[in-house]
Amino acid sequence: MLTTWTPAHMPEKEEIKIRLQTARSQLYDFQMKIKEHKIPVIVLFEGWGSSGKGSTIGKVIKNIDPRFFKVATMSAPTAEELRYPFLYRYFKQIPEAGKFTFLDSGWMEQTCKDCLSGEIEGEGYTQRIDSIRRFERQLTDNGYLVLKFFMQIDRDEQKRREKLLLDHKDTRWRVSDFDKWQNEHYKKCAKIFSQYLSDTNVSSAPWYIIDASDRKWAELQVLETMVSNIEVAMQNQAHSVPILQNVFPLEQIPRLSDIDLRDKTMDDEEYRGELKQLQSKLGELHNKLYRRRIPVIITYEGWDAAGKGGNIKRITEALDPRGYEVHPIASPEPHEKARHYLWRFWTRLPKNGHIAIFDRTWYGRVMVERLEGFCSENDWKRAYNEMNEFEKELKDWGAVIIKFWVQIDKDTQLERFQERQNNPEKQWKITDEDWRNREKWDAYEVAVNEMLQKTNTSFAPWHVLESVDKKYARIKALRIVISEIEKALKEN
Amino acid sequence: MLTTWTPAHMPEKEEIKIRLQTARSQLYDFQMKIKEHKIPVIVLFEGWGSSGKGSTIGKVIKNIDPRFFKVATMSAPTAEELRYPFLYRYFKQIPEAGKFTFLDSGWMEQTCKDCLSGEIEGEGYTQRIDSIRRFERQLTDNGYLVLKFFMQIDRDEQKRREKLLLDHKDTRWRVSDFDKWQNEHYKKCAKIFSQYLSDTNVSSAPWYIIDASDRKWAELQVLETMVSNIEVAMQNQAHSVPILQNVFPLEQIPRLSDIDLRDKTMDDEEYRGELKQLQSKLGELHNKLYRRRIPVIITYEGWDAAGKGGNIKRITEALDPRGYEVHPIASPEPHEKARHYLWRFWTRLPKNGHIAIFDRTWYGRVMVERLEGFCSENDWKRAYNEMNEFEKELKDWGAVIIKFWVQIDKDTQLERFQERQNNPEKQWKITDEDWRNREKWDAYEVAVNEMLQKTNTSFAPWHVLESVDKKYARIKALRIVISEIEKALKEN
Repeated sequence: MLTTWTPAHMPEKEEIKIRLQTARSQLYDFQMKIKEHKIPVIVLFEGWGSSGKGSTIGKVIKNIDPRFFKVATMSAPTAEELRYPFLYRYFKQIPEAGKFTFLDSGWMEQTCKDCLSGEIEGEGYTQRIDSIRRFERQLTDNGYLVLKFFMQIDRDEQKRREKLLLDHKDTRWRVSDFDKWQNEHYKKCAKIFSQYLSDTNVSSAPWYIIDASDRKWAELQVLETMVSNIEVAMQNQAHSVPILQNVFPLEQIPRLSDIDLRDKTMDDEEYRGELKQLQSKLGELHNKLYRRRIPVIITYEGWDAAGKGGNIKRITEALDPRGYEVHPIASPEPHEKARHYLWRFWTRLPKNGHIAIFDRTWYGRVMVERLEGFCSENDWKRAYNEMNEFEKELKDWGAVIIKFWVQIDKDTQLERFQERQNNPEKQWKITDEDWRNREKWDAYEVAVNEMLQKTNTSFAPWHVLESVDKKYARIKALRIVISEIEKALKEN
Repeated sequence: MLTTWTPAHMPEKEEIKIRLQTARSQLYDFQMKIKEHKIPVIVLFEGWGSSGKGSTIGKVIKNIDPRFFKVATMSAPTAEELRYPFLYRYFKQIPEAGKFTFLDSGWMEQTCKDCLSGEIEGEGYTQRIDSIRRFERQLTDNGYLVLKFFMQIDRDEQKRREKLLLDHKDTRWRVSDFDKWQNEHYKKCAKIFSQYLSDTNVSSAPWYIIDASDRKWAELQVLETMVSNIEVAMQNQAHSVPILQNVFPLEQIPRLSDIDLRDKTMDDEEYRGELKQLQSKLGELHNKLYRRRIPVIITYEGWDAAGKGGNIKRITEALDPRGYEVHPIASPEPHEKARHYLWRFWTRLPKNGHIAIFDRTWYGRVMVERLEGFCSENDWKRAYNEMNEFEKELKDWGAVIIKFWVQIDKDTQLERFQERQNNPEKQWKITDEDWRNREKWDAYEVAVNEMLQKTNTSFAPWHVLESVDKKYARIKALRIVISEIEKALKEN
């Protein structure tokens, strides 16, 4: 894309000046529209070292109130960040609805760096491009405006600018080793950049190549592009987004009503023996996981009072508290609700070598959010694929993913509700909301069945825990966790 | 403290077993009381390497629902964390009201390590102890229960345990270099530990030395101490906390009514000239700050419509967006409100070399929170000292602190409110709340005067910006920022 690109003709100075004034005041006006329309805007600046990414951001934000934007400078990932999936540190930065995030380089620079250093190639590169395309598409599908600028300068201009910066001790830090390397290997870099731009140039988030040879002219191109994109985004906002075809291999899974619950029991003595033995086994495996740096994600969904809490406890009892975290998922806080619904899960991922247990999960999107109308029909219908993509991302990163559905029948739930209600020490576990949800059992059953069918991928299948006898369910969960971890240890 | 400590007599096995059962079930019951009473609980485990800090935490949390606690393992600070004040990574971890945070080592281990390595000594050690004592006192004053356990084992026992762990490849990682070093220099370490324990053994957060030679016995001591402390904490909750005497040097500052506003003006031409020159100067200084790794904190308080936003903009226009962040402070979100009121500022501090600008600040505690009754009288009266301590901490870290009060009179505010109301493009800037606050002008004036008198410390004094003429205020702000930064560059 870059190699065949021809810059637009640069206008006269006077014209630039006039158009700049117009564009600046338009952007100033649009910031309030963005807020009113609750559109989150990501503005990604990529490009050559010393092409003026930072200084252009500096000029653009002058037209925006500081309450409405953040600037994130994405330098090389820290050792800590390297223990998370590639997209983690970018997903963390996405803005709230109605606000801007400006990124001074991002997933393009990192990917091209990884290509140039030989860190990724072939299959690895294809996989990276896939996840980036999914990431950007998920953002735009969920109402984000994603603006991507590539700041273009030629080799001589880059050389000249680097020299200027290097000549003074206060500006020397601005020229990174990678910047210098780029200039020495300009052609090679241009080829990689160009390939990347083509590979990620999609209509919902196209690339804008900016002629950055002149600073005012660069600013003008950026501002005018932003303004026209914001206009379009406001018009498009009401549009529904196409639901994508599922591309992931799905496994058969029985409907809830076909799950046999009654003969799934275990007597006390057998339970205690098994529990002890399995927990000690899991404790050993936890050490191995840590040493081999394998991340594990265990998720729990199920009916209220199905016994999720007690089940989780039997897992965590076996684990070293330094290496796991339980995330109880309640309704989102304002700053979470204002972002992509997966944001609060992305930001709670475990480091590699650690275990994260989610007590309720992202699947709330197609259960409670669907049934209570917290999101649109288009939103939850799209979510099956989005969640499969999310889990694919985690799988590709190397995570063990274990998804539990904890199943009981309606009568068992009633018994347990009543028991909680009548026991002063357990009353806190039961709320009016639980009773209200119970009334919607049938609607939930439809939603759960659809969810199980559509998200039972071969790389992250569901496991049903029959939990009328909680002991049975706990032992079954422990066995599954152990066997999945053992599988991963063998494969890795 | 450690060197003179004599362990309690260990009970018989059978007695331990019975008492353990009682203590476990008490803790289980107390978790709900903690939630009801909204008490945040910090449980800090310090002690010798291999003394069983992690495994004891593992046993204690078995009695608590995962919704109510987090475990934080504080290993050595990352390169990123080293760019923040010492307490930053600990303050970040404090729990919400009604929840527990368990820390696997913390500010004690880090401080003793720094002593043993010679990183801090003499003056530096005294300063560190001061800030730790203030930190813990601020937590307990604000309703936190702070439990500190030191896990004690003797040299032979440590040696034996380390050997066991080192013998197996899956547990080898648990023994850090520092742990091994400790055993080789046991006496030296004991002396430093003992000194630290004495220095930080205060009645509101005393040390509990735990005989950790036997694991069950250790668990029992910890559980029983937790239980009895929680009982006391619930009884003490309603108590007011003594207001501390101010110990910081205060400077004289005029009352608002004595500030002359009318002759503080500047004509357009002079303004434009000065602005350009000062901004270019500030831009240069920003580079120097970055290189010298000096953090800068600029705070704005002032009347509604005083011109804070425009003033901030004239500062940020001069800065490289990669090196500063503006934090607009609105009312706290639920997860912020549930913590110490300074938490949301601690977590927004700049890295060294960066600039953080706060549009409204922690001083909300003694203005809006005081006047609207969002905190108790005891809370806001205590806050003057707490905020001085906070700023002292930042100053000791090496930060440049510049506090602005943007001053206008009541008539000017009315004019500006009306102008905003009548201008469609500015209407978003004015809300009913602004009008309501205006009605309380006199009460605010009393509060602001008290605030200025009590927090005008010599290390972080207030600067009044006379802003009836906004141009004058902007130039004055720029000059102050430049001169304070220049001073810091000279001193460092």
